[in-house]
Amino acid sequence: MFGRIDHIGVAVEDLDEAIALYGERLGMPLQHRETVEEQGVEAVLLGVGASHVELLRPLGPDTAVGKFLARSGPGLHHVAYGIDDIDSTLDAVRDAGLLLIDERPRIGIRGIRVAFLDPKSTGGVLTELVEAPEGR
Amino acid sequence: MFGRIDHIGVAVEDLDEAIALYGERLGMPLQHRETVEEQGVEAVLLGVGASHVELLRPLGPDTAVGKFLARSGPGLHHVAYGIDDIDSTLDAVRDAGLLLIDERPRIGIRGIRVAFLDPKSTGGVLTELVEAPEGR
Repeated sequence: MFGRIDHIGVAVEDLDEAIALYGERLGMPLQHRETVEEQGVEAVLLGVGASHVELLRPLGPDTAVGKFLARSGPGLHHVAYGIDDIDSTLDAVRDAGLLLIDERPRIGIRGIRVAFLDPKSTGGVLTELVEAPEGR
Repeated sequence: MFGRIDHIGVAVEDLDEAIALYGERLGMPLQHRETVEEQGVEAVLLGVGASHVELLRPLGPDTAVGKFLARSGPGLHHVAYGIDDIDSTLDAVRDAGLLLIDERPRIGIRGIRVAFLDPKSTGGVLTELVEAPEGR
């Protein structure tokens, strides 16, 4: 059902500091930077093999990532699996009895269709599906 | 420096329930199950593309994962990057000024050499290096 790990999402307080860590000290190439107003984040993608690290800085304290930071501090926020067809995958996930945050795909970073599953039905792991070719 | 995402580690309270979720409902093939006494866990690897989901059930409340569960509940625990040479990578990470939990590699699941970086120097993300071929 899930083809690959597309990225891990990391909540950060200071985006430049996080870029210095992942980009300069750990040598991951910076691939994309975008403010995604709908999700309340400024996001940066860095490459690691065919996958990515996605750094997420909240645009304010009332955003989902802002609340996560206030509750848990910086760190791992979600995992995203790359899939080829998000519509059929959402149907399959729903048929398997899992709860969805997004009943229908929405547009995420880089204009790609994404959907989040409800962590209440995934053992506390915020899980995202992204319809994207491997190594995008 | 880091070649790929080898796995994400997920802390769970009930291993059979988590296997039913990832293995049966999400269709990831179960590849390995092992009790790693040194790390205080019973661990299960499931495949997703060339990467893995690693489920971690603590062997007791005083283990690292047991304390994590008591503090944060079940969910994302760590991310592991696959690398070809753990000795040179540890040198490079140390040279980049990062703090290590394991100054030297130790033996992890499936007899593979692993080392953890200190989350204090990785933005709160518990980060593991594993010396393993892609798609092991």
